[in-house]
Amino acid sequence: MDLAEIKVINTQVQNWLATAVNELRQNLDEQLQVRTKSGRNDLVTNFDKGTEHFLVEQIHHAFPEDQIVSEEGFGDRVQSLQGRVWFVDPIDGTMNFVRQRDDFAMMIALYEDGQNVLGYILDVMQDELLWGGPSVGLHVNQQKITGPANQPLAAGLLGVNGPMFALNREHVRDIAFASSGARIIGSAGLEFQRVIRGRQVGYISHLAPWDVAAGKILAETAGLSVTTIDGHPLNMLESQVVLVITRRALPEVQKIRQS
Amino acid sequence: MDLAEIKVINTQVQNWLATAVNELRQNLDEQLQVRTKSGRNDLVTNFDKGTEHFLVEQIHHAFPEDQIVSEEGFGDRVQSLQGRVWFVDPIDGTMNFVRQRDDFAMMIALYEDGQNVLGYILDVMQDELLWGGPSVGLHVNQQKITGPANQPLAAGLLGVNGPMFALNREHVRDIAFASSGARIIGSAGLEFQRVIRGRQVGYISHLAPWDVAAGKILAETAGLSVTTIDGHPLNMLESQVVLVITRRALPEVQKIRQS
Repeated sequence: MDLAEIKVINTQVQNWLATAVNELRQNLDEQLQVRTKSGRNDLVTNFDKGTEHFLVEQIHHAFPEDQIVSEEGFGDRVQSLQGRVWFVDPIDGTMNFVRQRDDFAMMIALYEDGQNVLGYILDVMQDELLWGGPSVGLHVNQQKITGPANQPLAAGLLGVNGPMFALNREHVRDIAFASSGARIIGSAGLEFQRVIRGRQVGYISHLAPWDVAAGKILAETAGLSVTTIDGHPLNMLESQVVLVITRRALPEVQKIRQS
Repeated sequence: MDLAEIKVINTQVQNWLATAVNELRQNLDEQLQVRTKSGRNDLVTNFDKGTEHFLVEQIHHAFPEDQIVSEEGFGDRVQSLQGRVWFVDPIDGTMNFVRQRDDFAMMIALYEDGQNVLGYILDVMQDELLWGGPSVGLHVNQQKITGPANQPLAAGLLGVNGPMFALNREHVRDIAFASSGARIIGSAGLEFQRVIRGRQVGYISHLAPWDVAAGKILAETAGLSVTTIDGHPLNMLESQVVLVITRRALPEVQKIRQS
């Protein structure tokens, strides 16, 4: 795709997100229907489903050739990253949405032949859209921003997955103790946003494709490293333990994991 | 003190906080001078000191008979809770202030003969002042609010101290795993605020008197339980492990600790 085409798509996506978020905000006081999925802390609500249905419909209508990977089942059974593939997470941080009505995000990402094109993380309650990609740069709402300083591990806070931190899985506790401190927010999108904005030096969690797709594009555009915890490239069709971190802290993390 | 006197004091305190927060916001881009105190992750800045100095001066000037317990040393050497005792934390969450310029609070509390009078937690970047006490009720900025629903442990998120959670000190990991999930924000005041607003079912951390003084008044006004982790009344002149939680979840926590 050339830049002109990417800009047209960007305008469309921002319009869809604005419509979806207005709809969500207007109905926030409506009856919330909460169901569990894989376990008591894996939730889905009528709002997740309604928002995903809306966004998937817009994409399918505008780009019928494209494939969509999404959380709640309205997307396609995507087997390959060939061509254009979208990733939709209607409410990232559903537990926060249910318990707090805050600290959740809407996320959309677009890849072409497996390459980063556009990523969107919308902090719904703060009304703050972090968006961009390699050809358009990084933006918060209408403002262009630059990537974070290249801090060492000890000079920054580390976002972590709670159980991985508590049980020291993949050395996450050891890594966090070498940072300025652990933080647990409960939304992968908002954790990525904090790393990209320089509020955290990194973030480690076990994530599904829709949890990481937008964050990866934005973080790499910001000059950050995004890999599996072992340092391998992500497989965008599988769940995996993801490490997003400054380039300076990356070898420090690898050293802790090998010790 | 009668209600009229408490209301006069409340107006004064809100004016001091407004002045202090304006001063802080206007100078946020100034040179930050950061020093470590007890260890590499125990920080103090020129902003902590300047804000505390200002607030302590206002209190001493307005109420020369009163005593002040404060974090950075401008207060008094308080040995007793007799009479009126103020607690001042100029920047609660100094690590967040330094690393994120967000998620920190200014806190003031007033006790008389050890009894709750007035508490203030000001979320500086959200410009949200949670304030109140037993005789004036609970408020967010100009709006009166009610306390949270009396949720069981499994129905809410639990704010935790990172190392206590990771190392299962005082069974904090076991307790968090029985909740909807752990969250780590890094500011005691903002954790108390989340419990009081119903965003979290509880919060557990090792806290100094200035970390807990305002939160205790507000949480008890909201109908929450505030004790040591062992269920004892707090000693407001010592550091201790503090548990703030709904009355319904309190016996669940005690049961987990005894098992």
